[in-house]
Amino acid sequence: MLKNPFFKNKGPFKLSNLIYNEKTGLNPDHGLDTLPEDVLISDIKILNDASNKDITFFHSLKYKELAQSTKALACITKESLIQYLPTKCRKICNVNVLLLTAQVTEQFYPDSITDDNNYDLKPIDETFKNTISGKNTLVGSNVKIGNNTKIGHNTIIEQNVIIGNNCFIGSNVILRNTYLEDNVHILDGAIVGKKGFGFIPNKSKNYRYPHVGYVLIKKNSEIGSSSTIDRGSLSVTVIGENTYLDNQVHIAHNVKIGNNCIIAGQVGIAGSATLGNNVMIGGQAGISGHLKIGNNVQIGGGSGVIKNIPDNTKVMGYPATEIRNFLKKMRSKND
Amino acid sequence: MLKNPFFKNKGPFKLSNLIYNEKTGLNPDHGLDTLPEDVLISDIKILNDASNKDITFFHSLKYKELAQSTKALACITKESLIQYLPTKCRKICNVNVLLLTAQVTEQFYPDSITDDNNYDLKPIDETFKNTISGKNTLVGSNVKIGNNTKIGHNTIIEQNVIIGNNCFIGSNVILRNTYLEDNVHILDGAIVGKKGFGFIPNKSKNYRYPHVGYVLIKKNSEIGSSSTIDRGSLSVTVIGENTYLDNQVHIAHNVKIGNNCIIAGQVGIAGSATLGNNVMIGGQAGISGHLKIGNNVQIGGGSGVIKNIPDNTKVMGYPATEIRNFLKKMRSKND
Amino acid sequence: MLKNPFFKNKGPFKLSNLIYNEKTGLNPDHGLDTLPEDVLISDIKILNDASNKDITFFHSLKYKELAQSTKALACITKESLIQYLPTKCRKICNVNVLLLTAQVTEQFYPDSITDDNNYDLKPIDETFKNTISGKNTLVGSNVKIGNNTKIGHNTIIEQNVIIGNNCFIGSNVILRNTYLEDNVHILDGAIVGKKGFGFIPNKSKNYRYPHVGYVLIKKNSEIGSSSTIDRGSLSVTVIGENTYLDNQVHIAHNVKIGNNCIIAGQVGIAGSATLGNNVMIGGQAGISGHLKIGNNVQIGGGSGVIKNIPDNTKVMGYPATEIRNFLKKMRSKND
Repeated sequence: MLKNPFFKNKGPFKLSNLIYNEKTGLNPDHGLDTLPEDVLISDIKILNDASNKDITFFHSLKYKELAQSTKALACITKESLIQYLPTKCRKICNVNVLLLTAQVTEQFYPDSITDDNNYDLKPIDETFKNTISGKNTLVGSNVKIGNNTKIGHNTIIEQNVIIGNNCFIGSNVILRNTYLEDNVHILDGAIVGKKGFGFIPNKSKNYRYPHVGYVLIKKNSEIGSSSTIDRGSLSVTVIGENTYLDNQVHIAHNVKIGNNCIIAGQVGIAGSATLGNNVMIGGQAGISGHLKIGNNVQIGGGSGVIKNIPDNTKVMGYPATEIRNFLKKMRSKND
Repeated sequence: MLKNPFFKNKGPFKLSNLIYNEKTGLNPDHGLDTLPEDVLISDIKILNDASNKDITFFHSLKYKELAQSTKALACITKESLIQYLPTKCRKICNVNVLLLTAQVTEQFYPDSITDDNNYDLKPIDETFKNTISGKNTLVGSNVKIGNNTKIGHNTIIEQNVIIGNNCFIGSNVILRNTYLEDNVHILDGAIVGKKGFGFIPNKSKNYRYPHVGYVLIKKNSEIGSSSTIDRGSLSVTVIGENTYLDNQVHIAHNVKIGNNCIIAGQVGIAGSATLGNNVMIGGQAGISGHLKIGNNVQIGGGSGVIKNIPDNTKVMGYPATEIRNFLKKMRSKND
Repeated sequence: MLKNPFFKNKGPFKLSNLIYNEKTGLNPDHGLDTLPEDVLISDIKILNDASNKDITFFHSLKYKELAQSTKALACITKESLIQYLPTKCRKICNVNVLLLTAQVTEQFYPDSITDDNNYDLKPIDETFKNTISGKNTLVGSNVKIGNNTKIGHNTIIEQNVIIGNNCFIGSNVILRNTYLEDNVHILDGAIVGKKGFGFIPNKSKNYRYPHVGYVLIKKNSEIGSSSTIDRGSLSVTVIGENTYLDNQVHIAHNVKIGNNCIIAGQVGIAGSATLGNNVMIGGQAGISGHLKIGNNVQIGGGSGVIKNIPDNTKVMGYPATEIRNFLKKMRSKND
């Protein structure tokens, strides 16, 4: 992950101050293992992005391999997962790993929890006199727009947006915390960069998880009408180069899509899934969270993918299986 | 159901006048059973909400139990269902129960058939000087907004909306006939309170069914971007406390969702379905109309639920079955 | 297909000039069969719409029968399909039929490739003083609006729109290249007439396919909130009379839907599918591209239709099969 271009990091913090304070409700006498040694922490990042100045978190066996090779200085985790972390990584054990992670993230990035509306928006033609733009279009602070980019009507560009050259943005679009490379098309009614659907369930009142990531849409890509692409929590949501999304597609937080992909209407991709290059997905297919879809994969329309798919595979059905097997099943069923 | 806070009831009407008139095309000499005794009718309500001053309707055996215990003074129904209604309830038999019900409803609530645009909207900062709000946001008549509520840009609040304290409303949102309790979040592009997809099919021209209900969203809940929640026909569409909906979710008219539910992206819930508390639904799952989903139910992503689900059950697949059975099936298929 | 009411045809062109030029990158010495005889071409149309002055294209065996009876003067096709075309039709063979078709279409209709925002929009009340309309609603050139039509707020009517009498258009709607007959309702947030999801995949940069068609919505129909209906590429996207679409429905380019159909929420219909009259489709069902669905067909909610469905059939499941078979399968599975 690039240095966060949008959210301001309030760190560094001493590890002890980050963990034991009013926000986390913890104190050094109970609830945590003894802190082996106090250190200064620069930032919070995911396992594979964390440097030896950062804190990270590890909450599920699925990420065992990433945990084993993390460079993080400290890691929020639980008793049963300690064994997978490198010796020199300081382990912070807590029953609710995600809650403590959220509380620590909030201290670094206090502005990332909700998407407070920006109230300092200005008509775009007051600020970007050289951009071709429509009526009633508004733009916030910390926005850059390249040359020869065209923007429609009633569009809202909130803060923290970088738009490349030769981009096309339709009408009724909403952008925030988003980086568009050159020649990207965002069609009418798309909503890009909203915080993800991330929170820690809690009976009396759910605890909203901070989303300090952003959305990166690489060059020559197109996002269809009324699609929604959420920004990452601690990571980036990425749409690769020359990748086209049809209308009403939903891309959840932290998803990473490769280059030259074609994604048909009403497809949904759940949080933290990763897709390779040259992936084709038929209409209304769904991909569960945290899965890895290889290169050159084809997924039939309406399929439900619930496990990893290796490179060069065609799958179909629910749960999606190789097309060969799917057709065999169908034949035997119809006997 | 609470007293209807939004639509004005033109009643009471004499039962005979309500049934025999130009709108219904009926006259006392044919087409109906003899009216046993004329009475004054205050309102039209569903079977279990009707008081002994109201008329109701009963069109399907599915509602047999509710019919048996209704307190309604009169009921529009068909010959074959008369036997299930209490003796003292006046039976109005008609071949097309729903059509006659719609015609009677229209007489009580003539303004509820279409969602005529409100043309008396005003810029919100002219009317609600203490509400923090964005640019181009409009507000209609009969609207209340609590303290410390924030509203985005280009948002349209038509008539008949009550918004609680500490609510957050994004940009490009449309609200009408909606009651938001405290601390509710409605994200960008959501459309809440539109009339439901209810009409009586008719070859030359469908007959639009009145929708006199509203949408009630209880405290601490969140509605995702580009979601649509339709208001009820004769009942209320309810989203319970601390229930979170992700993006592009569709909730049809009369649906009732309990507390602490989590509903992922692109889920669709058809008309009049009821969900208990602590229900979790994976992305793109669908629930058919008029079903009852119990408490603590988990529904896998992409599932299609076509029958009632008891409490404490995990289901998956299409049609959705208990996960145990689903996995067994899958294993035998893949042999 | 009616004479294209919206896009300006730059033709006629000589066949040789149309095929051999800088845009196509072809020259008469290689890459094509010898042109049998040069002729003047008026327009480009699909196989069954082409007159004896037009060029057409034929790229898949699926269209064999239409090819056999085409009246087209010339046809872009590939070696293996030549045999199905009438003798007098001039065959233009190319490895990439769709790419050459797109390049030829662009020459006739250079403005049809992207949906450049219209920057000459005016507030609707300046231009259509007799239309009842809301705030911030904009209207472009080449627009006609009938009597007694009502339009909401923040709605954008770009160029090339004809709206009939007694229509109802909600708020936040976007229309372009669209023809609405009388008494059509378009609900809030719908996007109608956008170019379809059509392009020729190309690793370095996809090639956008021109969309010179439009959307025709016949009388008495209703389009639900946040639905998207794309315009045709060389054909028209048609919604029949008295057909109702619920919220979040997606209709792709070139789809043709008959009269008196009922299409529930979140349904998706892929490109060039054709539906008969009186078709009912349950929520979240999907129909693959280029299929033919007969009259009086019922498709269960959540179904995935991947082959043609004959008249008077009820289908369900994925892939959708006759309900009888589907239920039998389910019973045997649950044994």
